[in-house]
Amino acid sequence: MPTKITAYEAFDIRFPTSQHLDGSDAMNPDPDYSAAYVVLRTDAADRCGYGMTFTIGRGNEICVAAIHSLAKLLIGQTVESLMAEPVTLYRKLTGDSQLRWVGPEKGVIHLAAAAVINAVWDLWARILNKPVWQVICDMTPAQFVASVDFRYLTDVLTPHQAMELLERHTATRAERIDELQGAGYPSYTTSAGWLGYSDEALKQKCADLKARGWSHFKIKVGRDLDDDRRRCRVLRREMGDEAHMMIDANQVWDVPQAIEWIRELAPFRPWFVEEPTSPDDILGHRAIAEAVKPIRIATGEMCHNRIMFKQFMQSGALQVCQLDSCRLGGVNEVMAVLLLAARFGIPVCPHAGGVGLCEYVQHISIVDYVCVSASMEDRVAEYSDHLHEHVYDPVVMRQGRYMPPLAAGYSVQFTEAALRQFAR
Amino acid sequence: MPTKITAYEAFDIRFPTSQHLDGSDAMNPDPDYSAAYVVLRTDAADRCGYGMTFTIGRGNEICVAAIHSLAKLLIGQTVESLMAEPVTLYRKLTGDSQLRWVGPEKGVIHLAAAAVINAVWDLWARILNKPVWQVICDMTPAQFVASVDFRYLTDVLTPHQAMELLERHTATRAERIDELQGAGYPSYTTSAGWLGYSDEALKQKCADLKARGWSHFKIKVGRDLDDDRRRCRVLRREMGDEAHMMIDANQVWDVPQAIEWIRELAPFRPWFVEEPTSPDDILGHRAIAEAVKPIRIATGEMCHNRIMFKQFMQSGALQVCQLDSCRLGGVNEVMAVLLLAARFGIPVCPHAGGVGLCEYVQHISIVDYVCVSASMEDRVAEYSDHLHEHVYDPVVMRQGRYMPPLAAGYSVQFTEAALRQFAR
Repeated sequence: MPTKITAYEAFDIRFPTSQHLDGSDAMNPDPDYSAAYVVLRTDAADRCGYGMTFTIGRGNEICVAAIHSLAKLLIGQTVESLMAEPVTLYRKLTGDSQLRWVGPEKGVIHLAAAAVINAVWDLWARILNKPVWQVICDMTPAQFVASVDFRYLTDVLTPHQAMELLERHTATRAERIDELQGAGYPSYTTSAGWLGYSDEALKQKCADLKARGWSHFKIKVGRDLDDDRRRCRVLRREMGDEAHMMIDANQVWDVPQAIEWIRELAPFRPWFVEEPTSPDDILGHRAIAEAVKPIRIATGEMCHNRIMFKQFMQSGALQVCQLDSCRLGGVNEVMAVLLLAARFGIPVCPHAGGVGLCEYVQHISIVDYVCVSASMEDRVAEYSDHLHEHVYDPVVMRQGRYMPPLAAGYSVQFTEAALRQFAR
Repeated sequence: MPTKITAYEAFDIRFPTSQHLDGSDAMNPDPDYSAAYVVLRTDAADRCGYGMTFTIGRGNEICVAAIHSLAKLLIGQTVESLMAEPVTLYRKLTGDSQLRWVGPEKGVIHLAAAAVINAVWDLWARILNKPVWQVICDMTPAQFVASVDFRYLTDVLTPHQAMELLERHTATRAERIDELQGAGYPSYTTSAGWLGYSDEALKQKCADLKARGWSHFKIKVGRDLDDDRRRCRVLRREMGDEAHMMIDANQVWDVPQAIEWIRELAPFRPWFVEEPTSPDDILGHRAIAEAVKPIRIATGEMCHNRIMFKQFMQSGALQVCQLDSCRLGGVNEVMAVLLLAARFGIPVCPHAGGVGLCEYVQHISIVDYVCVSASMEDRVAEYSDHLHEHVYDPVVMRQGRYMPPLAAGYSVQFTEAALRQFAR
């Protein structure tokens, strides 16, 4: 029996994180981690799909408005008809000829499309009684390719080339799944390095996280160079010479200033420098990357679609791909970007933190490892240590590694208690 | 006495244009031209500011939601404090640290910012009792530069360089204003070439427009190559050898397909080819431009901010800049892009049509000619022949040219009758 989508509900969920300066950086001094959340209801009793997009507070209400505009396109559709060729789902939610005008494939309309698309993948995975990562790992290369919209990609990646990329690693998928189920997928954490923390807090958080197994630490910079030097010194001393320090500027620099500032921080041996300038500035990132070699440039949490990632990758503007699970148009477009990254040999270290993002990205990094890149080299998924208690299937970390989720779906169903307390 | 903004109203205005296939093209088969409209009220009795952003129907409601999120940031502000250094206005509406997440400076939140920013310019111009073009033409170069956010531009254009660009033409501004008041600013029109029109309609509309003074005609292509050849032939025969034919694909091609298709249409001698592929694909446009030289590539109606235009220009990806008056962040960001275009010697032919856009762009092309480029070479502002009756100060065309508007403000105040009939 096919499952028909019959109704939806949208929620504006906000956590008052700004009260403790969790998440503070040079661009975002006081975020309130928030979710524009959608529940798809069906004609199968108790069978629902859950999806969200992440924001940092004000503006969440606009994403909720956009979810209303998009989710109604699915009423009366069966999950099976959308997912027979999963690109159908993507095109339905990003290709409406009128709604497309207010994007296209960017900003609020695309954030909302991600929430709705992810909710359908969640629903489908629940019907199949598998976590989303496993649904994808059980696909043939042809089914994987049939999930991706290749429009505007074919100058660098055709469906045929994508098939070839995927077929390289199909036979060995089961081995990598076994490995992940034993040892998990490596993560790095930003929980120590928020700009609003004192040096003392920075040291304590770092020591604590190190004791719990982490070896990659990210620190926020960009407000004041002397401050940055001092905080990098504190962190480097605490984390030790062997651990990896990542530096995140959250877009505060212009291109010439970025080059200067990064050179000043080079002695602290950053493993990468994240978001040195505007997320739209492909050519600016390339200029920075060339000037500060061999320091690697990372970006992606605000890279809004596969067409932007295509250009960042083809031009050598990024060396680390930090795709976002719900700024891109949901699972389908994430799969496109994983393929692009494999095509260009660029490691994917997905953006997470906030709320719900860690729950999403564990699936993505597993799919990348099992199906696409088959490599953990230079790859770590971001992790932050907060707000996990508000979903029914929170991430499970062991020694700083994500353990593959077992529950069916995409892991972002909020608890009834969270909805009661934090939904507007 | 300063004028304080005390309240606002937002309206969702939709015209059912899809009933007649006005505006039909390969990407947008049935647009309903719409406006997300804002009225700023003040403590001066009867003194209001009017601004809008343009959409093609569904999704207009999301822009209205975003106007609500933004316009309230202005309550209690005086126009004079915002416009003493006009970049203050731009930063206030694009720099909110939480709202920024759902852009930044792109999509719905930026379309809404344009409506609100333009409403403040309209209000300020009404206070000064001048049309917006004249407000800007009366600015010193330093005041012009103080209207622009140079963040992310300084690698190609500094405030100092912008001053130099403007100072070249300051002494001769009055001559060009006189010239415009006599002869107007040239336009081109898309009113003949919509994809939904029959060959007969195409011929008749072209003949009619030619008789009324136009010499540049745009035709929509990209659905079927044989159809395109036939329609280009019909148009070329009707318009004559001397007139200029522009070809508009509305983003339907991938890069390799664009190159092939444009080569097939080259015999019809297009003056430019518009939107051959994704509006985000800077490097794709560059590849196309290089492959089809000397045919020029035009784009911009969906180019979402100054950082994208910077890259399109610095990389040689566009030869004609079709900036949009309300996809960019209002007057301030339009001024930034006019400066960038002058910096790179690229002609600006603003996007118009729809509703309200012609009313906006007449101001922009006047400012470009009087203050920035001081040239009409290869420059025409777009014009379409519909929906002008719904604003109080509609454009005045004479022999295919925009006559400088005389009324104070930015020309997009909708009539009470239009609001009654078309606002939701």
